[in-house]
Amino acid sequence: MAFLTYFPRQRQLEDFVQRLGLESAVFGQLRWELLDLALVHSTVSATHNYEHLEFVGDAVIRMAVAEYLFQRHPDWSVGEYSALRSVLVSDRILAQLADFYNFDRYLLVSESARSDHAGRESRLAESFEAVLAALYLSTHSLQFIHPWLDPHLEELIRTIQSDPARLNYKAALQEWTQAHYKALPEYRVNEVAGKSESDRFVAQVWFMGKQLGCGTGRSIKAAEQAAAQVAFLALPENP
Amino acid sequence: MAFLTYFPRQRQLEDFVQRLGLESAVFGQLRWELLDLALVHSTVSATHNYEHLEFVGDAVIRMAVAEYLFQRHPDWSVGEYSALRSVLVSDRILAQLADFYNFDRYLLVSESARSDHAGRESRLAESFEAVLAALYLSTHSLQFIHPWLDPHLEELIRTIQSDPARLNYKAALQEWTQAHYKALPEYRVNEVAGKSESDRFVAQVWFMGKQLGCGTGRSIKAAEQAAAQVAFLALPENP
Repeated sequence: MAFLTYFPRQRQLEDFVQRLGLESAVFGQLRWELLDLALVHSTVSATHNYEHLEFVGDAVIRMAVAEYLFQRHPDWSVGEYSALRSVLVSDRILAQLADFYNFDRYLLVSESARSDHAGRESRLAESFEAVLAALYLSTHSLQFIHPWLDPHLEELIRTIQSDPARLNYKAALQEWTQAHYKALPEYRVNEVAGKSESDRFVAQVWFMGKQLGCGTGRSIKAAEQAAAQVAFLALPENP
Repeated sequence: MAFLTYFPRQRQLEDFVQRLGLESAVFGQLRWELLDLALVHSTVSATHNYEHLEFVGDAVIRMAVAEYLFQRHPDWSVGEYSALRSVLVSDRILAQLADFYNFDRYLLVSESARSDHAGRESRLAESFEAVLAALYLSTHSLQFIHPWLDPHLEELIRTIQSDPARLNYKAALQEWTQAHYKALPEYRVNEVAGKSESDRFVAQVWFMGKQLGCGTGRSIKAAEQAAAQVAFLALPENP
């Protein structure tokens, strides 16, 4: 592929792939045109951008996480799998991983989109998914993904478990009620005077006319998460 | 694996794999113990059942559908991908595929669960996902899946497209609002007297204080689907 070194973009992409920790021995197998696409935002080209790859990548990251959990932690419950996955595939985490690999340096974005700071997290997460899709489609396997992604998953899981408050039980509960009943749980929160600061808010979570759980916290959000955790951990395996 | 022929379950599983159209040449690569698990319901064993595999399989079917759409129909929009996927990975379709391969004959279920006819569709869909996971985990690729699944996807897509009413725009719209705003659209339906039968119900779909679409139909469900279709097809690519 010597002829490609004439093009700066190709050099940029090779640099990117090495940053992921992939050796140059795999260059011949990589579908460079897809990797290129994965790093183009729709504001740069309405037709030649990462959107289709992002659609595939959304499945790839779920697959990578599911396979990782199944292989490494076969003894954990499916409820734990779901709660962990809802954090691991969140925009926040994916954007964090994209940042780790300095995606900003490779992702082509129009000036106007670049100045939209609120959209940055989504852009990075979407592009991260698109890159996973390009790597997956190069070999129709996760062989270019597991080696560098798994250590991140391991560390993220360790961090989440050392501080269970990071586990997004609201998201996990919502995913469950959606999947089984196509409806969302409802939260009712009250501020309770005279209680200690950490019990200032009391939240109840309701679903289909039943209270599923109750929790307290120093903020509305914390109380809702506590209620969601109680509800989520008590969900029946077979609804 | 001659010794295994002493066990009737192994013969049953071999029969099952051949029914899928996989040749006996692949038998050596198959993880039979996972395929066995994939066909055991939790009412038969609380620990040795398909639940963990179903979790992985949920990602595998999304992956298989996404890859199929991307490879065969690169010119379709991401909106079309989403709308098709929400139908193709639905319990209804997965149970239909499981029925085609006569899963009932291989899936171990307790007598009491078997008599729960309402749960049959979920059981079949879940077990179908679990089987996909077992096949995926045998080679860490979709090589045992695409060959027999893709013709079904092709035919299902043709059927869906010849009758767009089959496309579940309500589900697709809901998936979109959930993904971007973690909230659900709301439907308001009125019965309109004096109108023709096919316009008997008028539905509006609202989201975050805005009316996204409006549609009519001969049933509440049909009117809601029509409204959802208008709304879904008009969604911005970048919210």
